Amino acid sequence: MPRYKLTVEYDGRPFVGWQRQDNGPSVQAVIERAIFRFCGETVTIGGAGRTDSGVHALGQVAHMDLARDWPAEKALGALNFHCQPDPVAILSCERMEEGFDARFSAIRRHYRYRIVNRVPPLTHELGLAWHVKNPLDAEAMHEAAQAFVGHHDFTTFRHSRCQAKSPVKTLEAFRVYREGDLVIAECSSRSFLHNQVRSMVGTLRLVGEGRWSPADVTKALAARDRRACGPVAPADGLYLTAVDYRSAEEDRAARAAYLAQSAPDGAASE
Amino acid sequence: MPRYKLTVEYDGRPFVGWQRQDNGPSVQAVIERAIFRFCGETVTIGGAGRTDSGVHALGQVAHMDLARDWPAEKALGALNFHCQPDPVAILSCERMEEGFDARFSAIRRHYRYRIVNRVPPLTHELGLAWHVKNPLDAEAMHEAAQAFVGHHDFTTFRHSRCQAKSPVKTLEAFRVYREGDLVIAECSSRSFLHNQVRSMVGTLRLVGEGRWSPADVTKALAARDRRACGPVAPADGLYLTAVDYRSAEEDRAARAAYLAQSAPDGAASE
Repeated sequence: MPRYKLTVEYDGRPFVGWQRQDNGPSVQAVIERAIFRFCGETVTIGGAGRTDSGVHALGQVAHMDLARDWPAEKALGALNFHCQPDPVAILSCERMEEGFDARFSAIRRHYRYRIVNRVPPLTHELGLAWHVKNPLDAEAMHEAAQAFVGHHDFTTFRHSRCQAKSPVKTLEAFRVYREGDLVIAECSSRSFLHNQVRSMVGTLRLVGEGRWSPADVTKALAARDRRACGPVAPADGLYLTAVDYRSAEEDRAARAAYLAQSAPDGAASE
Repeated sequence: MPRYKLTVEYDGRPFVGWQRQDNGPSVQAVIERAIFRFCGETVTIGGAGRTDSGVHALGQVAHMDLARDWPAEKALGALNFHCQPDPVAILSCERMEEGFDARFSAIRRHYRYRIVNRVPPLTHELGLAWHVKNPLDAEAMHEAAQAFVGHHDFTTFRHSRCQAKSPVKTLEAFRVYREGDLVIAECSSRSFLHNQVRSMVGTLRLVGEGRWSPADVTKALAARDRRACGPVAPADGLYLTAVDYRSAEEDRAARAAYLAQSAPDGAASE
């Protein structure tokens, strides 16, 4: 069966999240329905990250298998047509080697968190950013965020119902900067724990407001205790911006190694 | 009666336009209702520009008169509170001299038009930008737009039901540029005719697609014939970004001159 890689953008507001669920519309269901309308096949697609309700994506990645060998360009146009009027857009569609897996072949996820930092309420940005009224010191937030970079036990910064086996993750980068009224936080890691970005950003907000020092963040991380986390930031501001993959050749070698050992903990749950 | 200047941001999507109308919710009605809830006064506010249904604002300006001399900061907070949950935000509130008039004291209006130029459908930008799939040459659009700059008869580029006495306007600047997938058109004038920006942008799109040359735009302008206009761009992409005013002293002199002659044609209708 031909396997395709889909790069997907969506507005998370109307959805219960990426994953198909009984309690409401999901991005996965919208795309699977579009596939059915396009070619009559009932398929299950796999996503790189299981974004939560209200979380957005600019570059989510999913794989799909089709019985027939459709030209990728044809599938792209048809899926976009059939996703309408839901706010889901397929940005690209590529034929991949069979072993490509949107979740397990991923080597890095990139998230962006957007805060509108002003007193007046939001208008166009409602649901697309977190509204924080107190003035934020983005430089202090950036400094504090460096405590997260590297190999750490993120027990403090994961959802109490997070299902990952290990709370240990390696954060590759964390940058916080200001653009006018916007404070933007961007971080990258091979994978993230459930609610990890929102937990970290919610805690950094306390630093931005001057209520916590950067040292308090280091202390909260060292506590390895969910109760040491600041108030979790809302879904509104969170965007899965991109997912990186190995080359096809590197992927083949990694799969061979994988089959020889235990299952990796590759899920990104935000 | 103390007069206040309000700078207003709004998402135009849920509204029939700026102006209070019988056929649906308007931005003016939202603010007038907020004033009533704040201080119990029934007032009519005046706006600098009568934006059409679906048109947005980042810096609309209105004046309001209150019976009591409320501190501007107090009015600002109360109005923002009472505008909720409508997507209307008062960005600033200032006490002004009595003669200040949001419409007639204005000396320049600035509009921005946003086009998302890509094949996949819109998600977060739905209703906030115009979706144009054909590749646009923003430089050619910019070149063609220079035909609009200066003192011209804009009959071709105004709504057939435009109520302005004269179709002659002086466009001060028109800039078109690209930022990634976004093509942005920005223009400034003392005032605009009804649908003028959307008519000009809709016509420039033909240039961007290579269907018209910049010379065709000059010809359409010279025709002074509504039928020579390209298809009008939708409201979705249009933003009233700012309104400029004279200083209080200049305004006093202008008012004296105004009272000595006929009424100016100061309305901006987009």
